[in-house]
Amino acid sequence: MTDFLQLYGRYRDIIDRHLAEVIDRDEPVTMYEPARYVLSGGGKRIRPVLVMLSCQAVGGDPMDAVDAGVAVEILHNFTLVHDDIMDRADTRRGRQTVHKKWDENIAILVGDELMGIAYKKLLNTEKGDVRKLTRVFTEGVIEVCEGQSYDKEFEALPSVTEEQYLMMIAKKTGWLVAISAEMGAIIGGADEVKSAALLEYARCIGRAFQIQDDLLDVVAEEDKLGKPIGGDIIEGKKTFLLTSALNRAEGEALELLQSVATHTAEEHDLVARVTRAYEQLGILDLARTRIEQDTHDALEALERLDDNEGRRMLQWFARMLLERKH
Amino acid sequence: MTDFLQLYGRYRDIIDRHLAEVIDRDEPVTMYEPARYVLSGGGKRIRPVLVMLSCQAVGGDPMDAVDAGVAVEILHNFTLVHDDIMDRADTRRGRQTVHKKWDENIAILVGDELMGIAYKKLLNTEKGDVRKLTRVFTEGVIEVCEGQSYDKEFEALPSVTEEQYLMMIAKKTGWLVAISAEMGAIIGGADEVKSAALLEYARCIGRAFQIQDDLLDVVAEEDKLGKPIGGDIIEGKKTFLLTSALNRAEGEALELLQSVATHTAEEHDLVARVTRAYEQLGILDLARTRIEQDTHDALEALERLDDNEGRRMLQWFARMLLERKH
Repeated sequence: MTDFLQLYGRYRDIIDRHLAEVIDRDEPVTMYEPARYVLSGGGKRIRPVLVMLSCQAVGGDPMDAVDAGVAVEILHNFTLVHDDIMDRADTRRGRQTVHKKWDENIAILVGDELMGIAYKKLLNTEKGDVRKLTRVFTEGVIEVCEGQSYDKEFEALPSVTEEQYLMMIAKKTGWLVAISAEMGAIIGGADEVKSAALLEYARCIGRAFQIQDDLLDVVAEEDKLGKPIGGDIIEGKKTFLLTSALNRAEGEALELLQSVATHTAEEHDLVARVTRAYEQLGILDLARTRIEQDTHDALEALERLDDNEGRRMLQWFARMLLERKH
Repeated sequence: MTDFLQLYGRYRDIIDRHLAEVIDRDEPVTMYEPARYVLSGGGKRIRPVLVMLSCQAVGGDPMDAVDAGVAVEILHNFTLVHDDIMDRADTRRGRQTVHKKWDENIAILVGDELMGIAYKKLLNTEKGDVRKLTRVFTEGVIEVCEGQSYDKEFEALPSVTEEQYLMMIAKKTGWLVAISAEMGAIIGGADEVKSAALLEYARCIGRAFQIQDDLLDVVAEEDKLGKPIGGDIIEGKKTFLLTSALNRAEGEALELLQSVATHTAEEHDLVARVTRAYEQLGILDLARTRIEQDTHDALEALERLDDNEGRRMLQWFARMLLERKH
């Protein structure tokens, strides 16, 4: 039996090694020192591993997909650097953010540069139609920016519909997961049916992953999460939980949730009160059901692929991500 | 005889029309309203016209180069939006900058999005090797970011060498001019010799254009320049003039120039005093000589191309740009 966790670790190491070498210059120092810092920040490397596995699952060599995988990871990191400026976030994965450790100008510029480096790496990909590949990647850039833009617009609204929320996360966090599968399929030379199956798989796990993220903010164990429980509630973030709850609550509960959404809530005991409201409205179960449904749909989509190690790995990958506790 | 000015106007109109249509969505509003605003800001459209002319000069159809030209122009505009944030600039071409008219978050995001849109447009190019084309474009992204990074580093130094200055502007403002010619050559199917000639031409006019810009800050007529004379002096910008002067001055003049470079100058009558120092040190003549030499070298490089309307247009284009008074 394949040891999936070990295989995942091996793929992740390959990606990390490439990321450590992708910056081949030292000057200007104010550019490349922070750029190296960003790319050495660790993380699950979900997107690049997904590019490799998708390529493998359609019969390609996962090593052919490494450059594209690294490109998506760099693109993802570029969005984090710029989002952190916009969100005034001081830390990321337990380390200072770039604009905090250096300054805002540097963070803007390093993000821009990372986008260039991402394309440079992508263009080293030898298998698959390079125009198609670069188009899919570029659509990723555009959609992820739109997603962040919607997220910022929604912050200023008293409430959004569940549909609006799902549209926003499909762009902001789902799209790069989706293109990871799509790019792997292109590099692996997949036909239309297999490409579509992988895209469906990735859309489902991308969405479920985000809802899981929103859920963990409330139900995770604090020391495992690496940040305080209820951070989203305190920030008044329009998560799946808050959005769904706002659309279901009445009376006192509605008032409480509205005050969270409009950043006017009384802070005392807020996380506990909101969590209670979520429970009473059945929101936590709703989130769990959505995650299960998406996981189910993701696995079902994989049935359209031939059985091989890549597909089995993708099955394991979906379960691993969506059963995580932090 | 060809009416070059009219032909230039025609090419510029084609570019402007494409720029007006490049954004095909309205939402999110906070993204696409400012993006349209940026792309409708006018300008000389030097880079896209150069892409078209370079393609034509090597025997290609300039219309094949329109998408790539529009892409370079969008890329250029993305750098302006982000540079304006970093430089705390309130106006650009007589209009409010994006971060001033909207806010900084929006300006960051719109810049990012413009980069995506630029690649999208570029990938519509049908002639030439798409991988090579996209690589050249990507090197442009990387170099222009490095240039801005050096520029910001130099701001904090008391002085830089002429060599450092020329390296910085080759990246910050020269590189996109250079890739414009290179991309036109690729699309037009140029051989190595013609490509190299066009690249040499573009490097020369890019450098001369920047030195001309630095010179005009001091010698232009204010109402034609559209901004106050001596703005660079007041800001203490390390222009060609200040850099060269710092490396030549002694005694009182050196003290004056150092105070400009370190932003500690006595403001009274500063522009006049510095201009006088430049004149006495022969810096204005030095700048003029450099511009003439670069123009000469640019025209000489064109001799390596066959004679045709594209080449004649490039000759006119170099003279037009470098004899401009604003």
